[in-house]
Amino acid sequence: MTEFKEPDPDFARRVRESFRRQAIMGLIGAVLTGVEPGEVEIELPFRPDLTQQHGFLHAGVVTTIVDSACGYAALSLMPADTAVLAVEIKVNFLEPARGEKLIARGRVTRSGRTLSTCAGDVHAIDGPARTHVATALSTVMTITDHAKLRG
Amino acid sequence: MTEFKEPDPDFARRVRESFRRQAIMGLIGAVLTGVEPGEVEIELPFRPDLTQQHGFLHAGVVTTIVDSACGYAALSLMPADTAVLAVEIKVNFLEPARGEKLIARGRVTRSGRTLSTCAGDVHAIDGPARTHVATALSTVMTITDHAKLRG
Amino acid sequence: MTEFKEPDPDFARRVRESFRRQAIMGLIGAVLTGVEPGEVEIELPFRPDLTQQHGFLHAGVVTTIVDSACGYAALSLMPADTAVLAVEIKVNFLEPARGEKLIARGRVTRSGRTLSTCAGDVHAIDGPARTHVATALSTVMTITDHAKLRG
Amino acid sequence: MTEFKEPDPDFARRVRESFRRQAIMGLIGAVLTGVEPGEVEIELPFRPDLTQQHGFLHAGVVTTIVDSACGYAALSLMPADTAVLAVEIKVNFLEPARGEKLIARGRVTRSGRTLSTCAGDVHAIDGPARTHVATALSTVMTITDHAKLRG
Repeated sequence: MTEFKEPDPDFARRVRESFRRQAIMGLIGAVLTGVEPGEVEIELPFRPDLTQQHGFLHAGVVTTIVDSACGYAALSLMPADTAVLAVEIKVNFLEPARGEKLIARGRVTRSGRTLSTCAGDVHAIDGPARTHVATALSTVMTITDHAKLRG
Repeated sequence: MTEFKEPDPDFARRVRESFRRQAIMGLIGAVLTGVEPGEVEIELPFRPDLTQQHGFLHAGVVTTIVDSACGYAALSLMPADTAVLAVEIKVNFLEPARGEKLIARGRVTRSGRTLSTCAGDVHAIDGPARTHVATALSTVMTITDHAKLRG
Repeated sequence: MTEFKEPDPDFARRVRESFRRQAIMGLIGAVLTGVEPGEVEIELPFRPDLTQQHGFLHAGVVTTIVDSACGYAALSLMPADTAVLAVEIKVNFLEPARGEKLIARGRVTRSGRTLSTCAGDVHAIDGPARTHVATALSTVMTITDHAKLRG
Repeated sequence: MTEFKEPDPDFARRVRESFRRQAIMGLIGAVLTGVEPGEVEIELPFRPDLTQQHGFLHAGVVTTIVDSACGYAALSLMPADTAVLAVEIKVNFLEPARGEKLIARGRVTRSGRTLSTCAGDVHAIDGPARTHVATALSTVMTITDHAKLRG
């Protein structure tokens, strides 16, 4: 695994503040549970109102937390005063997402000036059982011109 | 575009009933607005509690509606008494997702006995402007043994 | 479908010259058969030395031609004195790739300053039959600093 | 990492025989250098006739070896008398693929009865330097009815 320098000593605070501004995380009840340089963890307790037709957590909900975990893993390695935007994500759904909670972990595979590549994994916790329910690859873009984010 | 036979005259009712059981659609406010054989449309009015840190609709929310549109497009061509599960999805985010509402459209590219391949697109509507905000490819599996869905 | 401006009247010549420098195209026998603004077509006659273990054209060969078709579709819309690099590609293999030849078509979905998003499709031709064998999404990066390409 | 049972003691011979029938591997000069249960390694010495327009190994060539490494990793865990077909693959290209040789490694993430999910990585070796040039996710299908493979 590549080791990464932290370009900004304040990275954890920046990630936490940005996460708080992701209103969707509040709506679904997702919690930021870990911020390391290049690696971020998000937990999501099971709720019936997050499910698809068979009672499993919807694939889009699984994607929502792993996408944010990947994006913030990328942001943790970027200079201060930058922002991130999702370019693309690919998720393979390995097993139905059910249990007490999901844990999504995003890790930076390559941290570039313009583009970062991240890998993500989601596990479901059900009592003592831990099931690997999804694996993901994503590309994240560094935004230095904040005007782009205001349209 | 390939033309598909409808294997089940009751396909639209089956899709609508299954959509109603996707609790996450109620939570985010998504509405099923079109069901044709092999093509399904879902609309999502903008809401501030669905956004990421810059005020755009979160990539995971965009994925949620296009994943369901693709899955139901696949289901619309399947025999009665089958179900669908998402195998994988890939989404490219083309522009920030903002405006009054999103329209996600899923279309079946290949309808197989076990696997279907679907293409999806999401547009944002903002007054007279219509912006292509995401494009997707997904694989959907036909489930004939319902025991699998009860774990 | 979005309409694109041609930023460089010389786009077709640039694409053709670059294609000639892709040595792999000569090795596998691929031919550039169409260059329009934002859309490129590559043909590959079947050859037994391009196959996998069942006698079908290998998934990697299918990917090779659709990746180049997408990359050159993106290049056709870029300013002179730029180059392209593949960022990522996703390919769904719909049917076994066999017959007399493959036709890969790449089209630009979004042409950005830094990143372009392309869609690709591959059909197999076998006498009168035309089979859709693969569909793809790819991200292509514009390179303006040619030093990056010399390492 | 999940541990996998070997369902067939003869798995390594089966993988090696199938690899020998992949004619494309001979054309590009790829060599099978490792077969473990659920993990396969393929090496590709650099050759100028495998390159794209800037002299790097073509993204499609990188995909070809990582796709086969993933497919054979899946096959190594399957029962005798089954075959594999690529369903889809996603590859992120991290750095230009150059140097003396590439090493592609495919690992099974989930081995299912019908579908397997694999992760792949490609490194370039250049003297003492080892560069991570690509990372991949793929879905592989188990074929038990060999009639499907004869069309």
